[in-house]
Amino acid sequence: MKLSFTQYTLSLKHTFTIATSSRSTTPVMLVEFEHEGIVGYGEASMPPYLGESHETAARFLANVNLEKYESPFLLERILHDIDSLESGNHAAKAAVDIALHDWLGKKLDQPWYRIWGLDLSEIPFTSYTIGIDTPDIVRTKTEEAEAYRVLKVKLGGENDKEMINSIRDVTDKPLRVDANQGWTDRSNALKMIEWLALRNVEIIEQPMPKGQIEDMMWLKEKSPLPLIADESVARLSDIVMAASGFHGINIKLMKCTGLREAHKMILLARSLGLKVMLGCMTETSCAISAAAQLSPLVDWTDLDGSALISNDLFRGASLHNGKMMPSSAPGIGVERIEAII
Amino acid sequence: MKLSFTQYTLSLKHTFTIATSSRSTTPVMLVEFEHEGIVGYGEASMPPYLGESHETAARFLANVNLEKYESPFLLERILHDIDSLESGNHAAKAAVDIALHDWLGKKLDQPWYRIWGLDLSEIPFTSYTIGIDTPDIVRTKTEEAEAYRVLKVKLGGENDKEMINSIRDVTDKPLRVDANQGWTDRSNALKMIEWLALRNVEIIEQPMPKGQIEDMMWLKEKSPLPLIADESVARLSDIVMAASGFHGINIKLMKCTGLREAHKMILLARSLGLKVMLGCMTETSCAISAAAQLSPLVDWTDLDGSALISNDLFRGASLHNGKMMPSSAPGIGVERIEAII
Repeated sequence: MKLSFTQYTLSLKHTFTIATSSRSTTPVMLVEFEHEGIVGYGEASMPPYLGESHETAARFLANVNLEKYESPFLLERILHDIDSLESGNHAAKAAVDIALHDWLGKKLDQPWYRIWGLDLSEIPFTSYTIGIDTPDIVRTKTEEAEAYRVLKVKLGGENDKEMINSIRDVTDKPLRVDANQGWTDRSNALKMIEWLALRNVEIIEQPMPKGQIEDMMWLKEKSPLPLIADESVARLSDIVMAASGFHGINIKLMKCTGLREAHKMILLARSLGLKVMLGCMTETSCAISAAAQLSPLVDWTDLDGSALISNDLFRGASLHNGKMMPSSAPGIGVERIEAII
Repeated sequence: MKLSFTQYTLSLKHTFTIATSSRSTTPVMLVEFEHEGIVGYGEASMPPYLGESHETAARFLANVNLEKYESPFLLERILHDIDSLESGNHAAKAAVDIALHDWLGKKLDQPWYRIWGLDLSEIPFTSYTIGIDTPDIVRTKTEEAEAYRVLKVKLGGENDKEMINSIRDVTDKPLRVDANQGWTDRSNALKMIEWLALRNVEIIEQPMPKGQIEDMMWLKEKSPLPLIADESVARLSDIVMAASGFHGINIKLMKCTGLREAHKMILLARSLGLKVMLGCMTETSCAISAAAQLSPLVDWTDLDGSALISNDLFRGASLHNGKMMPSSAPGIGVERIEAII
């Protein structure tokens, strides 16, 4: 059982600005797991504000020893051991998880959505993300997003209403708002949410900083729109606490260490009556296709990561009628291609 | 896709007495699911005190129409639809769930413990159940249980201490006690548990009636032994409530509608910090082998159902060093045999 990895840098089509940062590339680590002549692909996407990098991922992955296991089918134990190696390194851990799932699915000759017993007709519309920008660029990006039925808007900056008005100048599509912890005063946050509720906004992601739990409990009581935890929920163990301040959670493979834990998080969230969104970082079609396998289980997907880059290395899940549909290929359903630059 | 079913009656080796009833047979319904030349086996076991019977199962199963589905891989939707047909009928629903899992595992050419990524070395010891009886018969049964490392004792009758003393006359093996809701006064229950804790008892199952939630919260605070919910938890939706009064839950396929929900229940219980026991009814090796697939995920198994009957119809999971080990065959890991009567 052999694990290898290569660093790569994604080029973003547009410089990407959220409430706290701005950038035009994303470092990723591509992972291959080979055993019995089958290769499984995985990926770690590491936006710099989350603390992982090419260096941390390379160091972590070099310490992953899969040769001591009898079979990749010992997935629970392998992933538990890898998670116990060190805290953090969530994206690097996800890369191994995705590669092992790809291998297992190929070995079983089925895509994971079938192994999990899921129905592709239940996949919801995915959103396309528009970062914080000038009114002209916001209007251009909105027009570029024609193939999408829903847009996601990054707010939490100085010009939130201007952003929304710029978009509403060109489209009436439903919007999902991600404040990225940008609103620090709960009364102002509520006023903003009430204003947004009148403008065909479906949900609000992470309105306030993750430390402001009591403010979120107050806001949840009063909000006319569902509030979704993003920064407040990385992993399975964060969900029970978040249930008091949010109506739902946004699960991302790079936050939660991969498909195995993401699947468990969906089941736990459902058991607690929470809604579920499935999100991503800027990623190649490798990690996006992995996430797409789980998407029949969720209420909202935001799987535009591969659409935001100009140098994808995989072909896999693709947009059909506004939904990010997995391919019918086994595993995570991808094939490696040459970068189109 | 074809579902067929046949009624059958299990003969118990010993007349079986618990706090509330006594009997020497158990009605079961055997189910076969056939598609693409592969046959999946399932079973409903219906101890009479749970309200299902040959008649109710036949009526329910006759209404299950699988032909409208494109593929058995649409498992989540199929099982959701079957569950929505009617309330109750948990064992009949489990029979379909088990047969579909057996089919899918055979199609994937792997046993479910491998598809779920589990490690057989994590399977705990199973217990062998001794019903309420006279001291002489209790001693005989204890001696018959030589191959088991742990015994389960049914209490909640008039002679609880006498039962324990009879067993302790012949063995020092660890005991698990199932009171089957038999203790109605919380102070007496606590005194009994304290007495049992001095006699190498590991856990106490369902000490008090399921309606006495506040008494269970009181008892959980004070009990020196882990308290496990049995009658208090049938399905996924019962778990959150039970967490306040119990340290763990006993999951049985016949209570929870099958492997799909049982797997989710284990994940939810773990997320809430609960211990998990995996139990059974008197069943053939069909349903026992299905449950055994999940057993690496739990703390205690009580999978003696097929050992308690004299006319098994399947060969599958079997006892090795005190553990009920699944076979390596695909699906639920069983083959049909002639009844040995």
